[in-house]
Amino acid sequence: MLTVQYDGSKFCGYELQPNGNTIRFELENALNSIFNGRIKIIATSRTDSGVHALMQVINFETTSQIPAKNITKALNSMLPEEIRIINSREAKNNFNARFDVKQKTYEYLIYNEEVLPPFIKNYVWHVKPKIDLNKMKKASRYLEGSHDFESFCAAHGDDTDFVRTLSKIEIRYSIIEIWSGFKIPVIRCKITGDGFLYKMVRNIVGTLVDVGIGNIKFNDMKKILNAKDRKLAGRCAPAQGLCLIEVKY
Amino acid sequence: MLTVQYDGSKFCGYELQPNGNTIRFELENALNSIFNGRIKIIATSRTDSGVHALMQVINFETTSQIPAKNITKALNSMLPEEIRIINSREAKNNFNARFDVKQKTYEYLIYNEEVLPPFIKNYVWHVKPKIDLNKMKKASRYLEGSHDFESFCAAHGDDTDFVRTLSKIEIRYSIIEIWSGFKIPVIRCKITGDGFLYKMVRNIVGTLVDVGIGNIKFNDMKKILNAKDRKLAGRCAPAQGLCLIEVKY
Repeated sequence: MLTVQYDGSKFCGYELQPNGNTIRFELENALNSIFNGRIKIIATSRTDSGVHALMQVINFETTSQIPAKNITKALNSMLPEEIRIINSREAKNNFNARFDVKQKTYEYLIYNEEVLPPFIKNYVWHVKPKIDLNKMKKASRYLEGSHDFESFCAAHGDDTDFVRTLSKIEIRYSIIEIWSGFKIPVIRCKITGDGFLYKMVRNIVGTLVDVGIGNIKFNDMKKILNAKDRKLAGRCAPAQGLCLIEVKY
Repeated sequence: MLTVQYDGSKFCGYELQPNGNTIRFELENALNSIFNGRIKIIATSRTDSGVHALMQVINFETTSQIPAKNITKALNSMLPEEIRIINSREAKNNFNARFDVKQKTYEYLIYNEEVLPPFIKNYVWHVKPKIDLNKMKKASRYLEGSHDFESFCAAHGDDTDFVRTLSKIEIRYSIIEIWSGFKIPVIRCKITGDGFLYKMVRNIVGTLVDVGIGNIKFNDMKKILNAKDRKLAGRCAPAQGLCLIEVKY
């Protein structure tokens, strides 16, 4: 069981692709060198191209006797520096990083001022029209709890059951300070749930931003949910603003 | 007079180079399109390859009647997103961004834990041996004030007078929080002075780190200063940790 952190900016997402470098390809490649075999990994979340992770959990099986805690250093010496292993340990029998997950938390960052500081460009969505945070918050209340989220599910997903439970949506202003005194204001949308449909977080954030800038009324959210039709919700927020920040088993 | 912010990661520094993309090249290129001519710019600091700036000030002369405040938006629409204009205004007659500067402040970031989070890799120096901050602070006291800094000046600079005045060196632990709850500990070295020799900040930080990890004794700093010999000081800290954060005229 490995905990993996990555900057997704220059990868074609987590899942293996016929053309393009992916997180999974890099991880399996490094694992195969260590274990001298064909390691097949299972991950909590198959993040899209450009999406980041602070805590992606993966698991794999091996008959090797290498102590689990030694894997971290070995992998980090082989992986590109955009992908870091922050923990490695033996998992319980039959542990499955994808299907055993109880709760996932994503955070989406929005920058809502005129000139985007270059240092955060890969981690935020730059929205220029002024966002009314209150409207976003009001709209988000309709999405908390258990709902059929088909209206927020992108086509080409392999989902058939669209009911998910969002235990919390937290939207607030915050500051990122990389160098002292240089305060970058951002809007944080933190969404916790038992599971997420294909592009569901980005479709929710895009719709909430459409509410915040006045394209959609906050009390239309109920109608959008009930319609079970992707065309009624707002845009899909771009990938680079999204980060998988926590996973609970 | 323009205030410019940039992520220096993928540029070959500020100053024009025969081969390689530089900040100055990008700025002059964009200015030449707007003013339809050959604009020659003067900058506060000719930052090295990989060094960043929150507040680089540049100036240029033009007979154009375009209002100065309109330049910001026009330039930002043409520049790569790693370079942003944050202010444009008319300067006083004979203003010279390089020679009129009274005070510059640089901040250098150090990451001193085992596994480097990929999100800050272009903005910090990753030092693995444990740093004793107290030793760094004690050593820095020897450098505050007016001194001949030849021991901290790289060869190939065009300096002949090596005396500079450092009004303050501040060294402290701090936290960078990009996503909520994800706290990245860093060491900040903030150095303010009336001027800096070629690679002086990086040579000072490298030497202070050598003190902090025990390669150099803190009370050797006086000897190093007096020797006026670059070979006695410690290493040169890598470029990516350095940022020009403030300029005063």
